[in-house]
Amino acid sequence: MIDIERARAETPGCGDVVHLNNAGAALPPRVVIDTVKDHLDLEARIGGYEAYDHALAGLEHFYDAFAELLGAHRDEIAYAENATRAWDMAFYSIPFRSGDRILTTTSEYVSNGIAYLQMARSRGVRVEVVPDDADGTISLEALEAELRKGGVRLVAINHAPTHNGLVNPAAEVGRRCREAGVLYLLDACQSVGQLRLDVAELGCDMLSGTGRKFLRGPRGTGFLYVRRSLLEQLEPPFLDLHAATWLTPTTFEIRPDARRFENWERYFAGQLGLGVAVDYALSLGLDAIEARVRDLGADLRARLLDRPGVTVHDRGARRSGIVTFTVAGQDSSALMLRLREQRINVSATDPDQRFDTAAPESAVRASVHYYNTEDDLARLVEAL
Amino acid sequence: MIDIERARAETPGCGDVVHLNNAGAALPPRVVIDTVKDHLDLEARIGGYEAYDHALAGLEHFYDAFAELLGAHRDEIAYAENATRAWDMAFYSIPFRSGDRILTTTSEYVSNGIAYLQMARSRGVRVEVVPDDADGTISLEALEAELRKGGVRLVAINHAPTHNGLVNPAAEVGRRCREAGVLYLLDACQSVGQLRLDVAELGCDMLSGTGRKFLRGPRGTGFLYVRRSLLEQLEPPFLDLHAATWLTPTTFEIRPDARRFENWERYFAGQLGLGVAVDYALSLGLDAIEARVRDLGADLRARLLDRPGVTVHDRGARRSGIVTFTVAGQDSSALMLRLREQRINVSATDPDQRFDTAAPESAVRASVHYYNTEDDLARLVEAL
Repeated sequence: MIDIERARAETPGCGDVVHLNNAGAALPPRVVIDTVKDHLDLEARIGGYEAYDHALAGLEHFYDAFAELLGAHRDEIAYAENATRAWDMAFYSIPFRSGDRILTTTSEYVSNGIAYLQMARSRGVRVEVVPDDADGTISLEALEAELRKGGVRLVAINHAPTHNGLVNPAAEVGRRCREAGVLYLLDACQSVGQLRLDVAELGCDMLSGTGRKFLRGPRGTGFLYVRRSLLEQLEPPFLDLHAATWLTPTTFEIRPDARRFENWERYFAGQLGLGVAVDYALSLGLDAIEARVRDLGADLRARLLDRPGVTVHDRGARRSGIVTFTVAGQDSSALMLRLREQRINVSATDPDQRFDTAAPESAVRASVHYYNTEDDLARLVEAL
Repeated sequence: MIDIERARAETPGCGDVVHLNNAGAALPPRVVIDTVKDHLDLEARIGGYEAYDHALAGLEHFYDAFAELLGAHRDEIAYAENATRAWDMAFYSIPFRSGDRILTTTSEYVSNGIAYLQMARSRGVRVEVVPDDADGTISLEALEAELRKGGVRLVAINHAPTHNGLVNPAAEVGRRCREAGVLYLLDACQSVGQLRLDVAELGCDMLSGTGRKFLRGPRGTGFLYVRRSLLEQLEPPFLDLHAATWLTPTTFEIRPDARRFENWERYFAGQLGLGVAVDYALSLGLDAIEARVRDLGADLRARLLDRPGVTVHDRGARRSGIVTFTVAGQDSSALMLRLREQRINVSATDPDQRFDTAAPESAVRASVHYYNTEDDLARLVEAL
């Protein structure tokens, strides 16, 4: 059980806002804020490179923390500027050939969808959307059928989509990819920090995520996991002096570990902060976090269903902490701004979903985290 | 004239260290530190997305500040995570074909050199190093001769190399690229903030730089300039929902301005801080900064030349604030660490220069900025 009062006391923002925008960016705990600011102060006082040397242990700890969080090896972890760039470094490193098939799901993230289309145009890959089950999650039966047809280079899906509350059966997808011998890239941007993740159970080859959402880390931070046996087959789309060594005027060597996907210069204070955020999540326990987020999400949906004029749009047999709804006669973005005036933070979903024909044009998105309370939920519902 | 006492009073680190590692990362002024930390605090208090909305004017000001700094239009400016990624987004967007020639210079940055070799391997471009003039800068005569041979797709050089004190004749190179109708990518990582830059005078098509060095901005920030007339010809190697719009299940549209090279999620506090750092530099005046840095660099070289056993390795008729030297019988990295114990910050040059056969294996690098004093220089020389 998580000590909610303590978690809230350790979160300065809990005194200011009812924060139900954790799928946007969560409120960081004080230890994360202090870690980031302390390092910025150290840089300002003794110099940026000198502060870096001072922080080496903490920067290395980042890899251990993520290895523990994901059930991975530290050599399989890369720091990234954000989830998008983490995903990009993995996706664009795949040596696609003309005619290769990419399988994805209806609720894939907009940025990933655009990247698939770019790859279709530049290299002639075929982008195919696997049909859903009735609940909106990817149909495993349809996936199996597509895999059997052959020619699939990559299966890439979202674990917890940003806009419809469902959790895709990521481990079941992974088992089928393993059986078919097909690469599997899992976008865990919205699941890491709210669900317990284990890359062996998930069966994924690559997994990307962000710091700022359910992990409660700093904005402008992210990470990438790449399975060790795959590393040497993937040449990163960009290389710098950290990712590779310049051997002779005509030769270079790419480093063997997942840091080949990194570049040297970065927001080091943010990397330290994200490592500490992972420690914080691990100290509470991912099973406890997952249970609490699930229960608060279900509670909020139940409260919303009771309100006249409110429609909950969430799908999926299994659901995340993301709750989406519309209110009859109200524009979702305008409603979001009115709620913010009452210090209740929610967001509005992106209308640019082009694979997902079931999603409403726009909905209000209220996303809960373990530090939210029943009172937070009541305040949102009352404000509506 | 710059009020040095005031500049030092506004720089907390000046009270702690003799900072001669400005080519690594400069000490930021208090207004930059406060801007970054205030935004981090705001994110923690009211939420990350909510703080973003609050900071929109400052985030937009970033583009105006760089436009003024570089003599560019705001639509030609992109934010980047660092100089490496800024340069990458420009370089890897060029549609190279097999046999295309890339011309560079002996003192090109290691990361750029590795990227050229990667492009040679993946697309069959030819990487050619233009010979130097006697002073180590790129020979304009040799460049002209190579351009006349035809087949050159790109000229890409370093403005102020990291390791040898020279300033390349960037504007003269630009004029020749314009005449030849050849793309010109200028790496201004070490020149921006210490030299007055004007993209029209430089004649460059693309210019990349970092926040943390002579601009005195935060670590983990950078920028890219791309000439307006070129923008629509360059498809960024990565695309996300900020760089492009997803129109239909099979089509997307890349935005017309330089922000096509960005991605949405970032270290917003850092972007705000870098915008303020540019304002700070502009308020002092780049001509005044350039003169002061040049004079302090010359002063330091003169002092070092007076010391027995010290060899200054800087080249170039025109020199930057980067001063490189070795001390007979002493390892440069060990010397750097011993100086640091005395709170004197310098760095050691990277030995992995594969085009530059004139550079020593390793040298001490002392890099001055306008807030350094003659006393700082004296303390370094005494410590040696």
